[in-house]
Amino acid sequence: MKEYKIAIVGATGLVGRKVIEILEEYDLPISECELFATRKSAGTDFYFRGKRCLVKELKEDSFDEGFDFAIFSAGSTASQKFAPIAAEKGCIVVDNSSAFRMDPSVPLVVPEVNSEEIKNNNGIIANPNCSTIQAVIPLKVLDDHYKIKRIIYSTYQAVSGAGQEGVNDLEKGLLGEEPKKFPYPIVNNCIPHIDSFMDNGYTKEEEKMINETRKILNNPDLKITATTVRVPVINSHSESINVEFENKFDIAELKNVLKNAEGIIVQDDIYNNVYPLAINATGHDESFVGRIRRDFSVESGINFWCVSDNIRKGAASNAVQIVQKLIENDNK
Amino acid sequence: MKEYKIAIVGATGLVGRKVIEILEEYDLPISECELFATRKSAGTDFYFRGKRCLVKELKEDSFDEGFDFAIFSAGSTASQKFAPIAAEKGCIVVDNSSAFRMDPSVPLVVPEVNSEEIKNNNGIIANPNCSTIQAVIPLKVLDDHYKIKRIIYSTYQAVSGAGQEGVNDLEKGLLGEEPKKFPYPIVNNCIPHIDSFMDNGYTKEEEKMINETRKILNNPDLKITATTVRVPVINSHSESINVEFENKFDIAELKNVLKNAEGIIVQDDIYNNVYPLAINATGHDESFVGRIRRDFSVESGINFWCVSDNIRKGAASNAVQIVQKLIENDNK
Repeated sequence: MKEYKIAIVGATGLVGRKVIEILEEYDLPISECELFATRKSAGTDFYFRGKRCLVKELKEDSFDEGFDFAIFSAGSTASQKFAPIAAEKGCIVVDNSSAFRMDPSVPLVVPEVNSEEIKNNNGIIANPNCSTIQAVIPLKVLDDHYKIKRIIYSTYQAVSGAGQEGVNDLEKGLLGEEPKKFPYPIVNNCIPHIDSFMDNGYTKEEEKMINETRKILNNPDLKITATTVRVPVINSHSESINVEFENKFDIAELKNVLKNAEGIIVQDDIYNNVYPLAINATGHDESFVGRIRRDFSVESGINFWCVSDNIRKGAASNAVQIVQKLIENDNK
Repeated sequence: MKEYKIAIVGATGLVGRKVIEILEEYDLPISECELFATRKSAGTDFYFRGKRCLVKELKEDSFDEGFDFAIFSAGSTASQKFAPIAAEKGCIVVDNSSAFRMDPSVPLVVPEVNSEEIKNNNGIIANPNCSTIQAVIPLKVLDDHYKIKRIIYSTYQAVSGAGQEGVNDLEKGLLGEEPKKFPYPIVNNCIPHIDSFMDNGYTKEEEKMINETRKILNNPDLKITATTVRVPVINSHSESINVEFENKFDIAELKNVLKNAEGIIVQDDIYNNVYPLAINATGHDESFVGRIRRDFSVESGINFWCVSDNIRKGAASNAVQIVQKLIENDNK
């Protein structure tokens, strides 16, 4: 079997470190793994399959070595500058930043939902926003079966979504330290403000959920609104999702549709207190779905609760799964 | 001025203790304040206006002493048994439990919203559920101006809503203790389960928000759905509220309508990171409203974020304010 050479950009961040871990876990045919970061973090070392890897400084000539793939998790500025350079040199970039997600020439991929889009890449494939990935997995199968008319998102997002600094704000905040990453203390608080505000009153995080859901579900006019909120939880995002359908549904059948879908674990047994929880989703790659019930305020609609590990499926695992699909396609 | 005699039932609980504190703070013409609790908690003492009050055991003859008012915060079972006894003896009961809220002969009152209902009491006035009170204050004025068509609630409820045991679960959970009140650890978790489940998939907390909102807004057919969630926050509930209107609105005018309403503090300046927060609402009696923005997924609708101190306005203060109105009416 062919073996591949991969570059991990932003290797020292919360997502980058998880990418290295998941690459080992998934046991892909990777012969070489090189790690890159900004000058500040270069020099750190990690172990990949028992072999010590030194993190190198990311430079314009970093991709001259001939990589098959690169997973970028170093923020939009780094992606904007270096992803096109890498792609130019024949490397396929899977980018975790928001830089290229809405670019019509860049596929925005969740493998369970639209893996066929992977082939349409021009060297860059975008990984969606964490809060979008977990939601579109159940929404895609629901849309296929009942045609979605409108979605209303309210999120309960973990601090790890803001990186190590977000985690520090919660952990050190509990010891009385002032926040450094968030605008207010996150301890004993819910902050309805993720990413920056736009003039229409929405945050960019809310805009991302709306636009990326439309792009992934391939429905640019889908009616969606969102409220995104940071909560004092270390890891795994929870979401309250209200969906209205064009078509009628049977609730037992709808639950079966979700149970039989790829990438979803239905935890929905209210008589035994079974529903998705952040503490249980952490460490897994599925989107956990529960509290599925008819919304009696519309003709055809439901409410459900969706939880997933935002660092794994919301970022690192989804990126590695895209690489996995690229390898599968290459070997067909 | 006439002076009144009041009984506080459930005086040792989180809400009962806050009732005593707020009665002092509001400086109502109360000449005597007697405290009652179950046998287990009887014997504790509290100070009311510098005078030591011993908590007595709640008994069938407790109301023989001739009280003008009683504030009950001892749960549904105690209210069901003792509130009618107190009312029978001429005492007006303000009941914090859910026992009588949906009884058509019992007014369900938030003074800013429907204080005129107070007069229609037969000895019992119900205090709504905490998560309902803070929401109906802005919803009432919005309904008056734009006629509400549909409401979608997603809540972020503090552990104090489950009483001292709920607070203990979070505080001691941080030290590694297992939960006693909640079905799962609340530390680093969001639990989409408050009160018990019903066969239709909703919790009783969700049902209370739906039914009580309809009763208070005096619209039994109003379309409402809800997802209620416990979050790791000590005090003050936050709510993501989506509202659809029958009528058109101008967003600047709508914000002014809220700003000019009684009991609401609008905190809505995204350019300066001003929005309601649990840590800021605690200790206040208003419903804090912000993140007010047009919902572009419907013809006429908004999203907003609503935060309030669930122990004060969500329970104790609202009850004391009802007593205050009763005193005002009596003196007219």
